[in-house]
Amino acid sequence: MFTYFMPTRIVSGRDCVKNGADALKELGTHALIVTGRSSAKNGALQDVLEALDLCGIGHTLFDRVMPNPTLGCIREGVALLVSCGADFVVAIGGGSPMDAAKAIATLALQERPDEEVFQGGFLPLALPMAHIPTTAGTGSEVTQYSIITNDFAKTKTSISSPAMFPRVAFLDGKYMQDLPKNITINTAIDAFSHAAESLLSRASTPMSEMLAKEALKTLYPVMKRADGELSLSDRDALLYGSTLAGMAIAQSGTTAVHGLGYCLTYFRHIDHGRANGLLLGETFRLCEEKKIKELQTVEEACGERAQEIASVIDSLLGEREQIGKEELLDFARRSAENKNVKKSVYEPTAAEIERIFLRSFGK
Amino acid sequence: MFTYFMPTRIVSGRDCVKNGADALKELGTHALIVTGRSSAKNGALQDVLEALDLCGIGHTLFDRVMPNPTLGCIREGVALLVSCGADFVVAIGGGSPMDAAKAIATLALQERPDEEVFQGGFLPLALPMAHIPTTAGTGSEVTQYSIITNDFAKTKTSISSPAMFPRVAFLDGKYMQDLPKNITINTAIDAFSHAAESLLSRASTPMSEMLAKEALKTLYPVMKRADGELSLSDRDALLYGSTLAGMAIAQSGTTAVHGLGYCLTYFRHIDHGRANGLLLGETFRLCEEKKIKELQTVEEACGERAQEIASVIDSLLGEREQIGKEELLDFARRSAENKNVKKSVYEPTAAEIERIFLRSFGK
Repeated sequence: MFTYFMPTRIVSGRDCVKNGADALKELGTHALIVTGRSSAKNGALQDVLEALDLCGIGHTLFDRVMPNPTLGCIREGVALLVSCGADFVVAIGGGSPMDAAKAIATLALQERPDEEVFQGGFLPLALPMAHIPTTAGTGSEVTQYSIITNDFAKTKTSISSPAMFPRVAFLDGKYMQDLPKNITINTAIDAFSHAAESLLSRASTPMSEMLAKEALKTLYPVMKRADGELSLSDRDALLYGSTLAGMAIAQSGTTAVHGLGYCLTYFRHIDHGRANGLLLGETFRLCEEKKIKELQTVEEACGERAQEIASVIDSLLGEREQIGKEELLDFARRSAENKNVKKSVYEPTAAEIERIFLRSFGK
Repeated sequence: MFTYFMPTRIVSGRDCVKNGADALKELGTHALIVTGRSSAKNGALQDVLEALDLCGIGHTLFDRVMPNPTLGCIREGVALLVSCGADFVVAIGGGSPMDAAKAIATLALQERPDEEVFQGGFLPLALPMAHIPTTAGTGSEVTQYSIITNDFAKTKTSISSPAMFPRVAFLDGKYMQDLPKNITINTAIDAFSHAAESLLSRASTPMSEMLAKEALKTLYPVMKRADGELSLSDRDALLYGSTLAGMAIAQSGTTAVHGLGYCLTYFRHIDHGRANGLLLGETFRLCEEKKIKELQTVEEACGERAQEIASVIDSLLGEREQIGKEELLDFARRSAENKNVKKSVYEPTAAEIERIFLRSFGK
C-alpha cells in the first residue's frame, strides 16, 4: 500500500506573486511575513507587500529568522503573531524562514513546552501559509516538514503534520538571480540530494519515484554548470527541480545522508546542502558495493554513472573542511541512531557510517 | 505562469479500503454511498461497508446512478442525502457514479435551478468525498470535474470547482478483475485519451506533461494486450495509469476529442471511452498534417508512431457503428462551438471537424 498527498497549490512563473495575488485572499485578513535578515532583499518582500496591498490584506513583518532556526526564534515569531493578530503566515526565504514559518503557524494553534516540541505528535492544525522560496534547494514550499535546531539532542530535528503543507507556493526564479555562487551550489546540491535520497529510500513510492526522476533530469544538467554564470531560465529550472524533489520527499522522506549531515551542520556550522554533498560520494560508493539497484535509477535519470556524478559534486564543493578523526567518529556514533538510517535501502551499519564520515574527509 | 493543484489523498494497494479506513474518519459521521446498480458488485461495496462499520460511521445507500447521469438522478441523490442526514459522500463506480457523487456533494450545499447548473460558477464548497474507482478510465477520483448529461444543450457538460476534488481516492485493482472485456477496453481507451489529450492541450503545463507521459508509459503496454486476459497486476497498472491521466487533465483539461465525442454518447449512446477512441486516429492524422510537435511526445511515451498507436486502438474497437453522413455533419456542427476545441494545440477548423467525423466512420 502506498499513499500520495501534496495539497499545496503551486503558482509558478515570472511575477507570479503579484499576478497570482488572488490566491492570498483565501488565506486570511492579516499576514505575519516571516523572513530572514537578508532573505527578502531580492525583490520578494517588495512583491509580497504589493500583492497584500492589492488584496487589502494587513501585514506585520518578522524578519529575524536566523540560519538553522532555534526554538527561541520560533517562540519570538509566535509572540509577534499573537500580538499583531495575524491569521495567516507568508514565508519568504530559503529553508530556514520557510521551516520557521511552519513551526510558527503550528505552535500558534498548539502550545507545547519546549522539551515536547521535538517529540512530534502534532495535530493536523496550523494557520494557513503561503511560501515563497528564494533559494532552489529545500523544497519546503511543498512539504509537511519543518526542520528546527534541537539543542536538547544537539542536532536538527524534523517536526511535521499534514497541516504544515503550505496552502500556496509561489515559484519565481527571478528572486535567485543575484544569489552568491556558494549558496546557489549548496542549495542545488540539497535539492539533488533530496531527489537522489528519495529514490534510495525504503519509503519510495511509484509517485515519489516519478517526481524524483523528473527532479534529477531537471536539476542535474544545470547543476553541472552551477560553477559558472546561470541564466534566468537556469534559475527557473533549479527552482522547478527543487520543488519536484520536495514533492518527492514529502512522500518518501530522506535517508542516511540527511541523518548524518545534521551533525556537520550542528557542530561544524556547515551549510545543510553542502553537508549532504560532502557525504553523497561515499554513499554512492556504498550503494555500488551493496549492489543497490535503485542507484541505477539515479544514474539513468542523470544520464551518468554514480562516480561521474560524485566527481561533479566534488568539484562544486571545492576544498573540504578539516575535521579530525576523533570528531568524525563522534559524529558517526551520534548519527547511528538517526531514524533516517533505517529508512535507507543502503542501510549503513555503524562501521559503514564511520567509513562514510572518515573517507568523506580524507581520513 | 502555470498552476498545479491536486489536493486528493491517494491511498493505493490491495485491500486499501479496509486497511486505510482511518482516512474515512476525518470525513464525517454519516456517509451517503453513491453507486450504480451493478458498479459495486465486485466486492467494493462490501469493503466500504466493513470499513465504515470499523470506523463506527453510519451510512445510507444510493445505488440508482445510471450511465451518463442526468440532473434528475443527481436531484434524487441530494434528496436522499438531506433526508438521511449524511455529512459526507462515498462514491463507488466508474465515471458515472463518481461524477454524480461530486454533483450531489456540491448541490447539497449550493442550491441552483436546473437551468443554471450547467452555467458553472460554483463556489468552492462541497461535502467531503471519498472515491473508489471500479473501472480504470475516468480518473474522476483525482479531478475537480463532474460530467453530467445536459438535456438543455443535448450534450454532456462538465461542471467543476476546487471543492469537487475528493478528499480521498482509494485505488485497488482487484475490483476490476471481473470487468467485461468491452468495459475494460473502453475505459482503458478513455484513460489513454486523457493522457494523450493533456499533452495536446494548450493548457498543458510541465507537471501535467510529466503526469501524462508517465500515464502513457504505464497504460499503453497493457492496453495493447487488453483484448486478451489481464492479470491482477495489469489491472493495477491500468488503474494507476488512469489516475495519473486524471491528475494530468485536472491541470490541463481535455481537447477536441472529448468535445466531439460527447455527441456520439448523447445521440448514439456510444460509451464515452469508445467515443474518444473512435475519433483518436483521425485526430492523430490531423496533428501529423499540422506538424504538431506535441504528438511526438505522445509517440515517445508510447514508444511507437502515432499511426501504429491508432492501429492498436482500431483493433481494440472492432467494428465501427454505422452512422449516416447527414448525422455526422450534424454532430460536426454541434461540436464546433465546444470550448475544448479551442484548447487543442491542433485546433480543428469546422471543415476539419467534419472530416474527423466523416473519416472516423468510413464516409
